[in-house]
Amino acid sequence: MSADQAQPEGEGSTYDEFETRIERISNISNAAGVLRWDQEVVMPEEGTPARAKQLSTLSSISHELLTADETGELLAELEENDLNEEQTAAVREVRRRYDRETSVPQELVEEISETTANAHPKWMQAKEEDDFEAFAPTLEKLVELKREYANHIDPDADPYEVLFADYEPYLDLDTAERVLERLRDELVPLIDAIQDSDADIETDAFAGEFDDDDQEALARDVLDSLEYDWSRGRLDTAPHPFSSGTQYDARVTTRFEEDDLLGSITSVIHEFGHANYTLGLPDEHYGTPLGESRDLTVHESQSRLWENHVGRSRPFWEHFLPIARERFDELADVSPEAAYEAANQVYDDNLIRVEADELTYHLHIVIRFEVERELISGNLAVEDVPEVWNDKYEEYLGVRPETDAEGCLQDIHWSHGSFGYFPTYSLGSVLAAQLYAAAEDDIGGEATASEEPSGDEPRGAFDDQIRAGEFDDLNGWLRENIHQHGKRYTTPDLIEDATGEGFTADYFLEYAKSKYGELYELDDY
Amino acid sequence: MSADQAQPEGEGSTYDEFETRIERISNISNAAGVLRWDQEVVMPEEGTPARAKQLSTLSSISHELLTADETGELLAELEENDLNEEQTAAVREVRRRYDRETSVPQELVEEISETTANAHPKWMQAKEEDDFEAFAPTLEKLVELKREYANHIDPDADPYEVLFADYEPYLDLDTAERVLERLRDELVPLIDAIQDSDADIETDAFAGEFDDDDQEALARDVLDSLEYDWSRGRLDTAPHPFSSGTQYDARVTTRFEEDDLLGSITSVIHEFGHANYTLGLPDEHYGTPLGESRDLTVHESQSRLWENHVGRSRPFWEHFLPIARERFDELADVSPEAAYEAANQVYDDNLIRVEADELTYHLHIVIRFEVERELISGNLAVEDVPEVWNDKYEEYLGVRPETDAEGCLQDIHWSHGSFGYFPTYSLGSVLAAQLYAAAEDDIGGEATASEEPSGDEPRGAFDDQIRAGEFDDLNGWLRENIHQHGKRYTTPDLIEDATGEGFTADYFLEYAKSKYGELYELDDY
Repeated sequence: MSADQAQPEGEGSTYDEFETRIERISNISNAAGVLRWDQEVVMPEEGTPARAKQLSTLSSISHELLTADETGELLAELEENDLNEEQTAAVREVRRRYDRETSVPQELVEEISETTANAHPKWMQAKEEDDFEAFAPTLEKLVELKREYANHIDPDADPYEVLFADYEPYLDLDTAERVLERLRDELVPLIDAIQDSDADIETDAFAGEFDDDDQEALARDVLDSLEYDWSRGRLDTAPHPFSSGTQYDARVTTRFEEDDLLGSITSVIHEFGHANYTLGLPDEHYGTPLGESRDLTVHESQSRLWENHVGRSRPFWEHFLPIARERFDELADVSPEAAYEAANQVYDDNLIRVEADELTYHLHIVIRFEVERELISGNLAVEDVPEVWNDKYEEYLGVRPETDAEGCLQDIHWSHGSFGYFPTYSLGSVLAAQLYAAAEDDIGGEATASEEPSGDEPRGAFDDQIRAGEFDDLNGWLRENIHQHGKRYTTPDLIEDATGEGFTADYFLEYAKSKYGELYELDDY
Repeated sequence: MSADQAQPEGEGSTYDEFETRIERISNISNAAGVLRWDQEVVMPEEGTPARAKQLSTLSSISHELLTADETGELLAELEENDLNEEQTAAVREVRRRYDRETSVPQELVEEISETTANAHPKWMQAKEEDDFEAFAPTLEKLVELKREYANHIDPDADPYEVLFADYEPYLDLDTAERVLERLRDELVPLIDAIQDSDADIETDAFAGEFDDDDQEALARDVLDSLEYDWSRGRLDTAPHPFSSGTQYDARVTTRFEEDDLLGSITSVIHEFGHANYTLGLPDEHYGTPLGESRDLTVHESQSRLWENHVGRSRPFWEHFLPIARERFDELADVSPEAAYEAANQVYDDNLIRVEADELTYHLHIVIRFEVERELISGNLAVEDVPEVWNDKYEEYLGVRPETDAEGCLQDIHWSHGSFGYFPTYSLGSVLAAQLYAAAEDDIGGEATASEEPSGDEPRGAFDDQIRAGEFDDLNGWLRENIHQHGKRYTTPDLIEDATGEGFTADYFLEYAKSKYGELYELDDY
């Protein structure tokens, strides 16, 4: 559609009115984002009651603006007009939110909000005291409420599918399920083979105690090295690392533990990946869906691509270990290869998702996915969760939790009522591998004209660049193919345009088998 | 009025609806306050465009909620009801804002907002280049717009009076003018006498260069010493020190200059005074006028009381110098008396308001007040401001600015369109003296029953306590007589209730003459 057919954008046009309204909603959410960052990072401990009220007011106003009759009328009018591509995308995104938010009664939204507010301390206490029964009635209530919520949005759909779409609206649940099943079916034997391997992997490269201030300096080195834009960002510490903000101001947080230097490095690279995506969104579309990131799968693909494909690669440690040695004498005798091995160690006895390696991680996700699907569908009673959970750990990971605190109570998500969130972690990792392969293909293709032709095997096209601490080509590819588009395309279209094919686990599994097959000297991989 | 006659507060009552609405408005302002703190203290430099949009959205929504027909209808209905004292006060305060905000057309508000946004960089550049003419057209425009603004609010009133009431709604301009005239008439001869004095005042006690980190540690000592509640506050640096927040979270900022240790100490005490007022507002009234501070005069009285009556007193330096010596070896040979003298030096050649001492400060204010009154009334043309400004400096302070950068361009306020703001600085100092005297009277009165009867002379009742670093009685008096009331009483009623008399400059002038008469060994004082 040519521009002159499009709905005019001049002041007073319907589209202009629509845009003003959605920019308002976006500014309110972004203001709330600043308040939440403040609460996690700098707010004095007793600020909570006032902050909760401020956030609740912003959330109500945003909800009222979105679900107002005027929004519905504007959408209906615009949908009958000729819109250009950008306008069509913005209307599509707002329509989706409008339909979902208007279909859920406000009283139910408030009941969920109140129940989750109370669920959080109950979960914390239950976890502390390893007392699942104390949390069970709350979990039961949350499952019921979220089922009811899903039923309002689409009474004909599988409720879990509706909940999943809150986090990942455009990849359907069947796709997610197929990917997760493949991960389970192919990673379980790979991990078994690794556990049987006699390979002598260096795991102590980062053993020791490392000062917090020095760790912070090194985290800044990491961000410098990855060319994080400090004029639009900052690094702080927070109890639970996160990143947040807009293309003008995308901040990273991390935390330091004396005995986990490697964890602080990989965590800051992960959060960099999120912030770097946000920073790549176009300035000129700030406040509209074209200037906002796609959903959780794509966001997680960005953090995992930097964390795993860059940060857990050999060339990265060849580049970064000398920098780390400047900060820590303890690393003087560590070789890049030893650092690489330590960063890719596969654990055989880990029960905790957030401490998992790159492979077993996905089995943690698969277990949560299987448990919560059954919970929401009603096939699994809340009281049976611990046993089913533990059985699955034994089956998939060969290790059985001895307590619920390190079992089904370990993660915060259910206390937030976030059912359907977990799968996006794995889908993001899987997409990271697909994007990284496509970027290497594209960049490697160009590199055939250089001194060292890459021939038929473009993999490893970034290796020399990463070894030299150069990330411009990789980041340029991500900017061009992912970041700059905001929500212009749906997730499947974005993936198809960027990689030339549909969403697939092929690249992740190929990457996993090749990398870990080599590292653990596995004959069959 | 007894409680049972009051408008019921139950859910669904008119008052309840009114309260929900004003709490929303308050939560939006408080959210904006967090965003402004963030902008001044931690925001990355390129965050401005998005932040400006977020703040503008919050401000529009707050304005729309306040000026909506529903607010007017609720006010009208409540004003016909029997309300209890708290309800009456809340309605009075909202009515005042409602009447003012609804009387100014939104286009004018936006034009002022846009003009001031552009005025700020123009003023900065004009000041940098000492080029008043470059700023004059903007100043002219701002004067016109603010005259128009005042005319919408009250076409029959002196426009300066209307503007003044934006910052100090309850002390009328006549009172302010009388106080400022008295300050001028009585301080000019006092300062003359000081300048003629042969007294040998120690002025070099804090000469030297002091490390920023150590200054920050000392600023924290100051706040510890004054019993700042860290669980509801924090200290950070900002280019222009300020304090902001709510009773749950009232933060202090300061700045450090290597060669101005004394300035950093007095500045942090000043900001503590503001934050300490905010922290004394009642939790249970958060979100309504009963839980918000009175206007600029009362706020400034709190900062000045702590800065001047505590922080520039002999007993304070007897208490605090040993603490400061722990941080700075350079102070090893400084006596409390020398510190006291340095903190109270009266300058004879200072042109800059923010660097002024406790006495000449008020002449800086008087000059601005006289100049801006004439500007707004139209009796003074913008082009004549520099000459009139310089003449007044010569007349009142015996020193003539050689440039406009150190003359009429020195302060930011006019570029904000803030005409009528300056007087509240002096009024606040004057009120500080009145409150401090009343607190000493009350506490001293109680102290007659103790070991050391204070007799007829209650002044100095706090001296021993301050010397011992004990501020509970003073702060308790402020909490009880000022802080806990929020906006329950109008400013004159609050002053009358707290001190037993109307607002008066008597105590400030008595304090100034007695303190500086003794310090500078003046026979006639």
